[in-house]
Amino acid sequence: MELDQKMNGTLFGVGLGPGDPDLITLKAARLIENATTIAYPTLAGGDSFARAIAADLIKPDAREIRMDVPMTTAREPAQAAYDKGAADIAAILKSGEDVVCLCEGDPFFYGSFMYLHARLAPKFTVKVIPGVTSVTACAAEAGQPLVARNERLTILPGPMDEATLRERIAGAEAVAIMKVGRHLPKIKAVIDDLGLTDHATYVERATLPEQIITPLRDAPEKAPYFSMILLTKGADPWL
Amino acid sequence: MELDQKMNGTLFGVGLGPGDPDLITLKAARLIENATTIAYPTLAGGDSFARAIAADLIKPDAREIRMDVPMTTAREPAQAAYDKGAADIAAILKSGEDVVCLCEGDPFFYGSFMYLHARLAPKFTVKVIPGVTSVTACAAEAGQPLVARNERLTILPGPMDEATLRERIAGAEAVAIMKVGRHLPKIKAVIDDLGLTDHATYVERATLPEQIITPLRDAPEKAPYFSMILLTKGADPWL
Ligand SMILES: C[S@@+](CC[C@H](N)C(=O)[O-])C[C@H]1O[C@@H](n2cnc3c(N)ncnc32)[C@H](O)[C@@H]1O
Ligand SMILES: C[S@@+](CC[C@H](N)C(=O)[O-])C[C@H]1O[C@@H](n2cnc3c(N)ncnc32)[C@H](O)[C@@H]1O
Repeated sequence: MELDQKMNGTLFGVGLGPGDPDLITLKAARLIENATTIAYPTLAGGDSFARAIAADLIKPDAREIRMDVPMTTAREPAQAAYDKGAADIAAILKSGEDVVCLCEGDPFFYGSFMYLHARLAPKFTVKVIPGVTSVTACAAEAGQPLVARNERLTILPGPMDEATLRERIAGAEAVAIMKVGRHLPKIKAVIDDLGLTDHATYVERATLPEQIITPLRDAPEKAPYFSMILLTKGADPWL
Repeated sequence: MELDQKMNGTLFGVGLGPGDPDLITLKAARLIENATTIAYPTLAGGDSFARAIAADLIKPDAREIRMDVPMTTAREPAQAAYDKGAADIAAILKSGEDVVCLCEGDPFFYGSFMYLHARLAPKFTVKVIPGVTSVTACAAEAGQPLVARNERLTILPGPMDEATLRERIAGAEAVAIMKVGRHLPKIKAVIDDLGLTDHATYVERATLPEQIITPLRDAPEKAPYFSMILLTKGADPWL
């Protein structure tokens, strides 16, 4: 049993940061450069953002396991995609080889790696390499400190319903709202209603050449998936 | 005016990640390796954790600006320390040289760099390089996914009073409690009262050789400053 475990490869869930390849950690870079098999999810058969971030580090002859995750709100098709991906990865691990799974941002922070972890951690050695999250990257690019001292930071996904969103924004010292996309009008309305529009910043594709940073009131009408809204209190009397 | 701005150096607030030097980003590593002046805070004249993380990358002949931040709850002594640090840094920037300020974790996430930013960003070009935060590093080392889909992540500092802590933990899907230290007994009591002890993990000095990870019920009696408690829901029916 112990011998089996030893002969199996290790699955690495590797955080790549928010987009700029320079924000990859030294550890992640080394793992990718040495990887003989990499794995990554693609949305609906399109490109993989994670693969694009790591592209320059991937060996030309590395084996690549793509997981085509369908974009639907139904769960079964996505579950089937992760089941298949996990089986493909397990086959490599059983042969004694390691697999490096590429994860945008941090793997355990709203990352799809969590679905592979749930499937494979009970049977194989899985190591997670944390990465820079989009939240602190957006704050850094916007020049907006997030939280200090006894303040609370609340991180919310944009798709939640309007009433819940309103209740959870109210009262927090700093808020990051992820997965904005088509939820932008709803989120804007809630923030406006709470009288917080003057504290809200819109950030799109932070750290990439196409980055957009603007007060929320000047945000584009349509937001892509890779966008975020930051609510911060700004200058602080403590200082 | 524009010429002045151009001749001044740039202040870089550089995130170093949670402790393992391998979790420094490529960008941060390059900035430190090339820095002629580095700056960092020390707590009460002791060692600087930030400097220790970056030690192997610092040029032997780099100029070092130490900011000795006194450990008191009174604000004035700390303000005076940051005032002095900002003045020292400003003198270098005015001479046309860059300054690299070393920040444990991410600079804008409960980082003391925020106090330098407030003082210097109005007058100089300040760039922030985001880093891996202790929150995702603790989750990675503990093998505990933080949040997925429509879940909310709440980040709370341990020093807040018991009633506020209780109210803010209740109802959140995932919670990270920072700055545990001497607040451990209070935090434990609140978590126990809420019936959440089975979901709580204690993490001390994540990613360092001395790292401790244990269920909260088995946590050491005394927690150091560099410790955190994670509350996560664990396995998820979606999977
Ligand atoms: C599925 S989550 C993945 C988060 C990622 N694991 C992390 O650690 O940041 C995707 C969301 O992250 C945010 N995001 C990721 N990269 C971003 C970037 N470069 N700029 C702005 N938002 C980003 C957006 O809100 C997007 O909808
Ligand atoms: C002043 S805050 C700085 C946070 C830092 N800027 C970051 O991004 O993680 C210090 C708190 O961070 C947490 N922390 C920092 N490094 C840690 C580590 N390696 N392990 C556990 N907790 C850590 C502890 O809760 C500590 O009290």
